Amino acid sequence: MSTISNSGEADPLADNGPLALICGGGTLPVAVADAVIGSGRRVVLFPIRGWADAVLVERYPHCWLAVAQVGRFLRRARQEGCRDVAFIGTAVRPPFRALRVDWEMFKLLPRVWRIYRGGDDHLLSGVVRIFEDHGFRIVGAHEVAPQILMPAGNVGSRAPAAQDLADIEHGLGLLRAIGPYDVGQGAVVANKHVLAVEAAEGTDSMLARVAELRARGRIPTPAGEGVLVKAPKPNQERRIDLPTIGPRTVSEAARAGLAGIAIVAGEAIIAEPAAVAAAADREKVFVFGIGAPQ
Amino acid sequence: MSTISNSGEADPLADNGPLALICGGGTLPVAVADAVIGSGRRVVLFPIRGWADAVLVERYPHCWLAVAQVGRFLRRARQEGCRDVAFIGTAVRPPFRALRVDWEMFKLLPRVWRIYRGGDDHLLSGVVRIFEDHGFRIVGAHEVAPQILMPAGNVGSRAPAAQDLADIEHGLGLLRAIGPYDVGQGAVVANKHVLAVEAAEGTDSMLARVAELRARGRIPTPAGEGVLVKAPKPNQERRIDLPTIGPRTVSEAARAGLAGIAIVAGEAIIAEPAAVAAAADREKVFVFGIGAPQ
Repeated sequence: MSTISNSGEADPLADNGPLALICGGGTLPVAVADAVIGSGRRVVLFPIRGWADAVLVERYPHCWLAVAQVGRFLRRARQEGCRDVAFIGTAVRPPFRALRVDWEMFKLLPRVWRIYRGGDDHLLSGVVRIFEDHGFRIVGAHEVAPQILMPAGNVGSRAPAAQDLADIEHGLGLLRAIGPYDVGQGAVVANKHVLAVEAAEGTDSMLARVAELRARGRIPTPAGEGVLVKAPKPNQERRIDLPTIGPRTVSEAARAGLAGIAIVAGEAIIAEPAAVAAAADREKVFVFGIGAPQ
Repeated sequence: MSTISNSGEADPLADNGPLALICGGGTLPVAVADAVIGSGRRVVLFPIRGWADAVLVERYPHCWLAVAQVGRFLRRARQEGCRDVAFIGTAVRPPFRALRVDWEMFKLLPRVWRIYRGGDDHLLSGVVRIFEDHGFRIVGAHEVAPQILMPAGNVGSRAPAAQDLADIEHGLGLLRAIGPYDVGQGAVVANKHVLAVEAAEGTDSMLARVAELRARGRIPTPAGEGVLVKAPKPNQERRIDLPTIGPRTVSEAARAGLAGIAIVAGEAIIAEPAAVAAAADREKVFVFGIGAPQ
């Protein structure tokens, strides 16, 4: 096992022993695992039962966890010589009563309960601190696997038109305005009319709402106008919670009758970029990475 | 018929001939009609087909309109000697293709289309200007019937607790922040966690979403916490579009598991206050009118 650095400031790409990768659902966990292995570092997957894909994680060294089995994680990650931990993959905020609580978690319960009742930012920052207090270092999955970051410009062959760019600007302004309130990471804007703001329901559910409002004739703009705009919240714990899009986001945006999706490049994750590009072309929507302002 | 004043600045309570009251759904139109009649002024109701309650409006002088029958309104309101127009009652933003367009409306179409594609504020300000251009004066229903305004303090016997007051403050801050974006007039906040933000879907639909998220275990706070906060948007056309609550809002808030409803006093309308108070006590929620800051 390689030496474990003691510097909390170390380059996240430097070898600090194998990476412990706590895995939610979808294909992103194995994309990150492959990228890390490709960079010459060992990974140990910690797939979460009920979220992670058993078939996908099987090919890698792995150890299943229930949500909130903190003690089991700490023991096994230490045995494996891991010091760095990354989180990746889709997760559903579980009902508190459904958490499988082990002894380590039990001792943390009063603290977790306080964290749990705050907003998502509060929740995730709290989780980070708990791992750090146990001597682990949280690294962003995108830091060890920058391949998963949303690139600037178009994914697929379509590009936003002038009205779409105005809608994107409007949406970014709205998201900036609500940033201090730890609301969601997304909004739907059509012809500068805010159709939906994401909060606890998540992006997919917000898009489904727009599709339903449109079916009921409640959306003033015609189909083929409007943009899903996503951006990280200003205080977001970016190491473990960046906005993410994937092929499903594209089909949901198309079903909502939107012209496309815009997401801040370099501060968001794209799952299966080739499938996203194919879906964008098939569904005739753009997928646009918003570049840093000049 | 009484004399028609030429002053655009006249006291809205002064007699400028009978009041033309364009009526949407619910009981508010007749509450306003009764209040105006009680103040000694005549009213002519213009109920909108599909929205207004035929049984309720029958007792008053009235003339049915289809949505967007501007010409018919202008003719009949002038015949009746009306100069002041108020709008009251629930309305559903109709699909543009469903509008019954008469000749006056036809001439206005390019303008209405431009208005229609903007946000709600834009839409309503545009409607006000169209009536004003035809020599009518728009008055707020609450200006001629201040009885319908939400009072400060509690409606019903429950009062917000300290945590509720903090949630109300958080929600008001959020609504102020999104004000410039012409989003909705409401948000749901529980333990300073923003659960939902209202946009095109409306308050009832937002509350139904919170109820559904709660049923799926996606709401971190227990039932009995959280507040529906409503406030007018900063640039809102208050004469024809104030936030409104009624008994149904109370039962929807209870179904969403909230502790109560807070709405800015004097800048919002309460339909059937006695029924709201009864529903609040029955459902064990508070209904609180937020007073002006000291």
